[in-house]
Amino acid sequence: MRETRPLHEARTEAAKTLPRQRRNSDESQRHLIDATISAIYKHGFHEATAQRISEEAGLSAGNIHYHFGSKDELFAAAMRQLMSDISDTLVYELGKADTPLARAHAIIHANLSERLYSHRNCFVWLQFWSETARSEELARLERINAQRFHRNLLDALSKLLPRNEAEQVAKELVAMVDGLWIRKAQDNASITPQAARTLVFAYLDRRLGSAAQTG
Amino acid sequence: MRETRPLHEARTEAAKTLPRQRRNSDESQRHLIDATISAIYKHGFHEATAQRISEEAGLSAGNIHYHFGSKDELFAAAMRQLMSDISDTLVYELGKADTPLARAHAIIHANLSERLYSHRNCFVWLQFWSETARSEELARLERINAQRFHRNLLDALSKLLPRNEAEQVAKELVAMVDGLWIRKAQDNASITPQAARTLVFAYLDRRLGSAAQTG
Repeated sequence: MRETRPLHEARTEAAKTLPRQRRNSDESQRHLIDATISAIYKHGFHEATAQRISEEAGLSAGNIHYHFGSKDELFAAAMRQLMSDISDTLVYELGKADTPLARAHAIIHANLSERLYSHRNCFVWLQFWSETARSEELARLERINAQRFHRNLLDALSKLLPRNEAEQVAKELVAMVDGLWIRKAQDNASITPQAARTLVFAYLDRRLGSAAQTG
Repeated sequence: MRETRPLHEARTEAAKTLPRQRRNSDESQRHLIDATISAIYKHGFHEATAQRISEEAGLSAGNIHYHFGSKDELFAAAMRQLMSDISDTLVYELGKADTPLARAHAIIHANLSERLYSHRNCFVWLQFWSETARSEELARLERINAQRFHRNLLDALSKLLPRNEAEQVAKELVAMVDGLWIRKAQDNASITPQAARTLVFAYLDRRLGSAAQTG
């Protein structure tokens, strides 16, 4: 959790040491995953067909079955990729944080960073959100992601507030950040990452102030 | 805005005085709209086929074209129905509110009422949210709804806070309520309407307290 270099660099390093065949396979998988995210962004979840995804990846449609078994598996891999991007950003932001308040800010910052709080990312995530009712695997991934966000916040806030207050603030923050993702997914121009962070940080600072007075 | 009787009762009264033919047509339309909402809840937006909707309504599929012209029109009518339910509940809640704070509470209450803050309603709304990128009409309706929520809150809050503070609080509240809708859409058991209202009311009361201190 103290790695300050973005993880994707470390990954690229590791990839160079893999045998060529394995590396090519990993690259095709990664191409297909990136193409899936692009296709969902361009056409929406239900119009992101195997044909469109493979075209986007510059590979034949058979690659989806070869590498993932099924389109459902590929979609799950794409959602895991988005979650892993969030993790990487979180690890990077936490690497710079050395107090509980800085850790809480880092967790929020990661979710509202220029890299993740983009129209593309929020839109694709909204598409996954709306699919979790019909896919047990997507629902499971979504729960893991939501629980991780909530738990990380709670850990940081518990060092700043009594436990029941920390629980409350964590719930409020999660709801607020989810709502901001929805807003960005709907309309890119509605709010910038900077403005979203300012909104939530100001909220948190005031909340900690008033909780400290009453707590 | 002072009507305290739920509007659907007033509508039923009005319907009784319409000629029978018009009434039957209105009833078929309403059946199809209700069936659309049910079909989206059961199967998701993309699996809510004309066949499933007409079966759910107990009518033949031709009725969709006869009454709405197309399935897209029917979906837009279903979204307008959900918006109209929100309006009706809002009018009902505002009818009981006689101070700016009570009005702000009423607006939040309407969005987190037992009737509207149900798994079904939040789930179907999430489906519409995820479709607004591909449908200009659904996007337009969503904007109207979001603007109405924001403006109503802002009107009430502007009587309690300086304008720029009111703007800020309104944005925070909208994000929080949207996030709570997402949470409910994902998992009905995650939070009750009562718990959601308690969360947001507690937030607003503290927020008004601290804004009054600083403002």
